[in-house]
Amino acid sequence: MRAAVLRPAGIEVAEVPEPEPGSGHVLVRSLACGICGSDLHAAEDMHRFAGLIAEVGAPGALDPDADCIFGHELCCEIVEHGPDTTAALPVGAVVCSVPILFGAHGPEQLGYSNRYPGGLAELMVLQEALLIPVPEGMAPELAALTEPLAVGEHAVVKAELRGGEVSLVVGCGPVGLAVIAALKERGVGPVVAADFSPGRRRLAERLGADEVLDPAALSPYSRWGDLGVPAGLLERGAAELFGGSFKDAVIFECVGSPGVLRSIIKGAPPKARIVVVGVCMATDEIEPFFAVAKELELRFAFGYTAQEYATTLARLSRTALPVEELITDVIDLDDVAGAFEALKHPGDRGKVMVRHR
Amino acid sequence: MRAAVLRPAGIEVAEVPEPEPGSGHVLVRSLACGICGSDLHAAEDMHRFAGLIAEVGAPGALDPDADCIFGHELCCEIVEHGPDTTAALPVGAVVCSVPILFGAHGPEQLGYSNRYPGGLAELMVLQEALLIPVPEGMAPELAALTEPLAVGEHAVVKAELRGGEVSLVVGCGPVGLAVIAALKERGVGPVVAADFSPGRRRLAERLGADEVLDPAALSPYSRWGDLGVPAGLLERGAAELFGGSFKDAVIFECVGSPGVLRSIIKGAPPKARIVVVGVCMATDEIEPFFAVAKELELRFAFGYTAQEYATTLARLSRTALPVEELITDVIDLDDVAGAFEALKHPGDRGKVMVRHR
Repeated sequence: MRAAVLRPAGIEVAEVPEPEPGSGHVLVRSLACGICGSDLHAAEDMHRFAGLIAEVGAPGALDPDADCIFGHELCCEIVEHGPDTTAALPVGAVVCSVPILFGAHGPEQLGYSNRYPGGLAELMVLQEALLIPVPEGMAPELAALTEPLAVGEHAVVKAELRGGEVSLVVGCGPVGLAVIAALKERGVGPVVAADFSPGRRRLAERLGADEVLDPAALSPYSRWGDLGVPAGLLERGAAELFGGSFKDAVIFECVGSPGVLRSIIKGAPPKARIVVVGVCMATDEIEPFFAVAKELELRFAFGYTAQEYATTLARLSRTALPVEELITDVIDLDDVAGAFEALKHPGDRGKVMVRHR
Repeated sequence: MRAAVLRPAGIEVAEVPEPEPGSGHVLVRSLACGICGSDLHAAEDMHRFAGLIAEVGAPGALDPDADCIFGHELCCEIVEHGPDTTAALPVGAVVCSVPILFGAHGPEQLGYSNRYPGGLAELMVLQEALLIPVPEGMAPELAALTEPLAVGEHAVVKAELRGGEVSLVVGCGPVGLAVIAALKERGVGPVVAADFSPGRRRLAERLGADEVLDPAALSPYSRWGDLGVPAGLLERGAAELFGGSFKDAVIFECVGSPGVLRSIIKGAPPKARIVVVGVCMATDEIEPFFAVAKELELRFAFGYTAQEYATTLARLSRTALPVEELITDVIDLDDVAGAFEALKHPGDRGKVMVRHR
């Protein structure tokens, strides 16, 4: 079969052996698969990526010099049932799955495994017990958005909104857009979104952000007072002492580049909750004094639960938000290497989706 | 009056004008006053300290080149009631107070003000409305521990213990010891405490820490498994999937030096809550990937509420813990400069307390 394979020289489309479904697995044909920011990080420095994964004790050892086929934002079609399966969903059924597989060597993260291909291959194997049928008539590209949207859903769950907060979404790439979608599905507002890219700001607006800012023109941290959030320690103290109505801030870090967390810590109002969803792979600097003096809370969020994933797919089938606009590029498997190159400077791009033919 | 004054050349004991009580103030004689880690930070680089304070919008502008008399861990005796006071507590009454004063220029942080002296002066002014009488017979040195112990109390409140957590206290200086005391007042356990100093480890034991470690001999992060906390992502996932009994970790950062947060983030088990109580004044480095992958939560804690302060004083009067042992050095005003110098390498020291004669 054909697959976009990460090798030490880079990503190349190559012929690779077809995967074989083991006990409890199904063989599936990949229909659509998104490219994730983490794939970009991994492709850029697989040695560092694999080293961090190993150090944190994540399942599935990753050999940085062996073939790795990315792709964990999946929508597939069942081709064949492996041993010890129930065939509850028939051949031809269109399915999604959290990208976890229990193989002979324990749990594997599909998309970051040397043993099993991710969705950037024509065929892959999934765990039958984790399959969720895609609602009738939903386009595979849309179903493949379940995974990145579930990341946004999880981040909003982590924020533990109490009602009445001002939400600031820093960065409107796919992660930030997913957070905006999860907030607006809940009817939460105001949601302020910030991104340097006009295209991404437009997408943020389309997904319902109440205020959209270009940080080059206006600091997102200059708006607290106008939005009813006490911005300084003294204002906060006075607001707490004298009661009355004031708002808390929740800030979603959806960039994942060095320096962003530092600027958020500096710009956050007192008592803000900061949900860190962007995955910064580099060592980063912060100014702890500001976090201490303002009693900030940093909640690092990663992935989602199986329940959040299922909820997200179900919601996707009936959402009123134009979530499909999140997909700005639909490409062929042959274009994957070029897309990885282009995404080093994402510009106005939202989600880049590989559509298998 | 005499006071230990921070000047650009360093701390010197000098004659300074007596403060005058303004509207709502009382003039008090300082009986005992502790030296705080923040005083050491400020004395080391007042320009940086004042700059950070200004940047974060804290009350009370601090001119780094003007006289500053430290001291916010107070116990005082009322000397005279200023205008617009009720004299509810008589002259001679021994009192504590949160170190806040509402002056002609707005709120001031006593101990970090150019306008009003802190507790390292013979006389100071306090806000009458904030005074709390010290229980009969309590030694002034012990009452002056209210402030640092309230910092520990606040940190434990911030941790939002749900029951059944393993607590790790990193650093057993006065802040760490205050956290241990607040945990053990609640009967919470197990509490693991780590410090390089044998003397501080002994104090941690005296305050009830259940396990005390020398990090040079044994990493505090090597104990999770033995204490019932799933230490790796895979173990955590399995524990959550299969239920059964497992524990969460709460880690208190009580050092406040660069690099400590980074090592805690690396050594923390998945889903740990990290309460940052140590005040690191320097820019610091972290590895966000580990925090993300393990979904850590960082809660920065600062100070305490007036209620927590009052609770701490009341508890201090009836505690069964040998809290007085926290005071390892009682010194004269004349010895303050030497103590600041000595505390650059605190060794086995706990709290250094200035006792006015």
